[in-house]
Amino acid sequence: MTTHIETLASAARLAARVLAGASRADKDRALNAIADHLLAHESEILAANNEDVLRSQAEGITESLIDRLRLNPKRIAEIANGARQIAALPDPVGRVIRERTLENGLHLKQVAVPFGVVGMVYEARPNVTVDAAVILIKAGSAALLRGSSTAAKSNEVLVNVMRSAITSVGLPADIVQLVSSHDRSTVRELLNARGLVDLVIPRGSAALIRTVVDESSVPTIETGAGVCHVYIDKDADFKKAIPIIINSKCHRPSVCNAAETLLVHQEVAAEFLPMALKALKDQGVRLHGDTQAIQIAKSCGVEMILATEEDWSTEYGILEMNVGVVADRQSANDHINKYGTQHTESIVTESQSTAAAFIANADAAAIMVNASTRFTDGEQMGFGAEIGISNQKLHARGPMGLEEMTTTTWIVTGSGQIRE
Amino acid sequence: MTTHIETLASAARLAARVLAGASRADKDRALNAIADHLLAHESEILAANNEDVLRSQAEGITESLIDRLRLNPKRIAEIANGARQIAALPDPVGRVIRERTLENGLHLKQVAVPFGVVGMVYEARPNVTVDAAVILIKAGSAALLRGSSTAAKSNEVLVNVMRSAITSVGLPADIVQLVSSHDRSTVRELLNARGLVDLVIPRGSAALIRTVVDESSVPTIETGAGVCHVYIDKDADFKKAIPIIINSKCHRPSVCNAAETLLVHQEVAAEFLPMALKALKDQGVRLHGDTQAIQIAKSCGVEMILATEEDWSTEYGILEMNVGVVADRQSANDHINKYGTQHTESIVTESQSTAAAFIANADAAAIMVNASTRFTDGEQMGFGAEIGISNQKLHARGPMGLEEMTTTTWIVTGSGQIRE
Repeated sequence: MTTHIETLASAARLAARVLAGASRADKDRALNAIADHLLAHESEILAANNEDVLRSQAEGITESLIDRLRLNPKRIAEIANGARQIAALPDPVGRVIRERTLENGLHLKQVAVPFGVVGMVYEARPNVTVDAAVILIKAGSAALLRGSSTAAKSNEVLVNVMRSAITSVGLPADIVQLVSSHDRSTVRELLNARGLVDLVIPRGSAALIRTVVDESSVPTIETGAGVCHVYIDKDADFKKAIPIIINSKCHRPSVCNAAETLLVHQEVAAEFLPMALKALKDQGVRLHGDTQAIQIAKSCGVEMILATEEDWSTEYGILEMNVGVVADRQSANDHINKYGTQHTESIVTESQSTAAAFIANADAAAIMVNASTRFTDGEQMGFGAEIGISNQKLHARGPMGLEEMTTTTWIVTGSGQIRE
Repeated sequence: MTTHIETLASAARLAARVLAGASRADKDRALNAIADHLLAHESEILAANNEDVLRSQAEGITESLIDRLRLNPKRIAEIANGARQIAALPDPVGRVIRERTLENGLHLKQVAVPFGVVGMVYEARPNVTVDAAVILIKAGSAALLRGSSTAAKSNEVLVNVMRSAITSVGLPADIVQLVSSHDRSTVRELLNARGLVDLVIPRGSAALIRTVVDESSVPTIETGAGVCHVYIDKDADFKKAIPIIINSKCHRPSVCNAAETLLVHQEVAAEFLPMALKALKDQGVRLHGDTQAIQIAKSCGVEMILATEEDWSTEYGILEMNVGVVADRQSANDHINKYGTQHTESIVTESQSTAAAFIANADAAAIMVNASTRFTDGEQMGFGAEIGISNQKLHARGPMGLEEMTTTTWIVTGSGQIRE
């Protein structure tokens, strides 16, 4: 018996072969058609989305989840605009990565080629349905989209609109397919469709990502969890430090590149922390701290509770922050290596040698010197698009854009060479 | 309770931090010391290896496995020489992959950094113990080596010799550690040591690789299975074709880049196949074929049995080969996409457009034009070293050398930038 995923993935493989042979112009036409069709079907999309929202409200789903689920004309316009922006980016397929001619005359060329079929497993946000599909199309791969049942109606309409746009430019509709979200078994099938699916990317909660990584025999790229730190060195410029802390923590607390812990060098803690803590309090941040930080907080009348061992490794995702006083730069690195998730670590210092030592001792996807942790982001880093932020070391580390969504092949051209 | 792997991996993480900070000169000194110590301890190594061989013979292990297990002075000299060759290669750590300055003044630099702790799970060959360790040391990562119990004594001595060599140059011994091979649970522990182990690479049988890929929650790189094809096009130069077929099949039939299937364009089959089949028979190759190939074989008095459906997807690993007659280049691609393992596919043709079409329709780690499949090999392709051949699309595809054994980090340098 053929499973739901086998049917979808087999169709996706055939369609992916056609897409792999498509020119940049073909792919860009498809992306622009998707943008046009999304705008043209706005009311249909909003009606389906409204169904999802009403059902979710009836089921008592939290307002923050509803907020992520809800679409409006502005959001649809942004999604459509995103597709056009990706159309404007260079084609990641065909790039020559390495090239050499060997002594025996063999010519070696390593070129970027599409993955083939890529599965996405994600949660409520319906924009991911389009964002992921358009990035994958541009990267030459077929997308199997497994969103959450919460957004089932929205995703259904979005995928149908994309498929008709794709067909309108002469590419096969099956390069974008929606995986049924009616039961959890479709996720398991997708994660074990070895040979049919080349890669699965999870996006969402830590629990979702953990399930995907644990259960998958298809290669996966882990995205997600960020317990990011800002370390204020003894040689920090305080005028830079305060905005960096506030921006890292408060700009968008729910995302993975928001900071969870502030570490301060003991030599400057008494002078610097009162300013920093007041600034954080002004933003409504609830503070957890070690005994030294609490002492300083008390001295300046700022409320702070004792941080538990668990707090130091917690991704709050809200306006809460840990504050620790460390003996020196090495202690900061040690703390980060113990409690961090190898996502983004920031140091504020005017000393180049301290910055270099911090970098050498950090083990993270991104290390910031005198900059907010919030810059670990595909758009911000000039990738032009982002399908997620890899939190693993294999294949891609940090923001993943179009280039990260390709694999490679070696093309070896000879004139009859054999191995001696 | 701390498991065997937790103890080893925690020590490896600490040692890996020191290794990550080591200079190229430090690492090269360690590799050359390993070469010296291996030669100096030759008799000790051979005695331990002899114990493994005698025990394996008593257990009735096959002669081909014994052959892979057995060391002799020449093999030890080759292993030592391999370590020196890797010392002579450029440092893969610190390479700048991408670099740009954003409009807001942020300077972005993506640099190659070590993985951290890498596990190897492999079978009888004790040379893998040293080969893998020296590649990983040069790439700045600590190695956890889980060889087979068959080679337990050899591996124990080899690892001890390497550890004393490493200590002699002032690096921590724990950058190379042997995982106990007494029971299978150590493999499972290694595969699930998330957060402690950054990557696991399996090397060995298809069954071993499958187990690692299925059971691991640590990221893995799948190596291995190769059902490679040689396609002789209607525009092939027969003088090139015959040596390429013989070399691809017979040069070393047991390895993954050996060919298993010969496909011939129907227009030239009657003329070409008699020559090719006789050449294969002269090498002692047992032939399986489709009905058209069998007919031609009969006409020239060459024995050939009917290939079963299973045969076409079998990695023989010995002197057996499938022979098929195909309607055209597209049929060859279709056959390869159906039965191949995306490893290495070779076309013999003088037509550049046919070669280009074959490349565009193939989905493999390496595609050869007028060259033997045997060239998919790190040494042959000028990598200088090889830790295995990746048969997956994630991270590395094809031969993996030093560069493939690194990950990356983004270093972002600013002057107080925050996100608007």
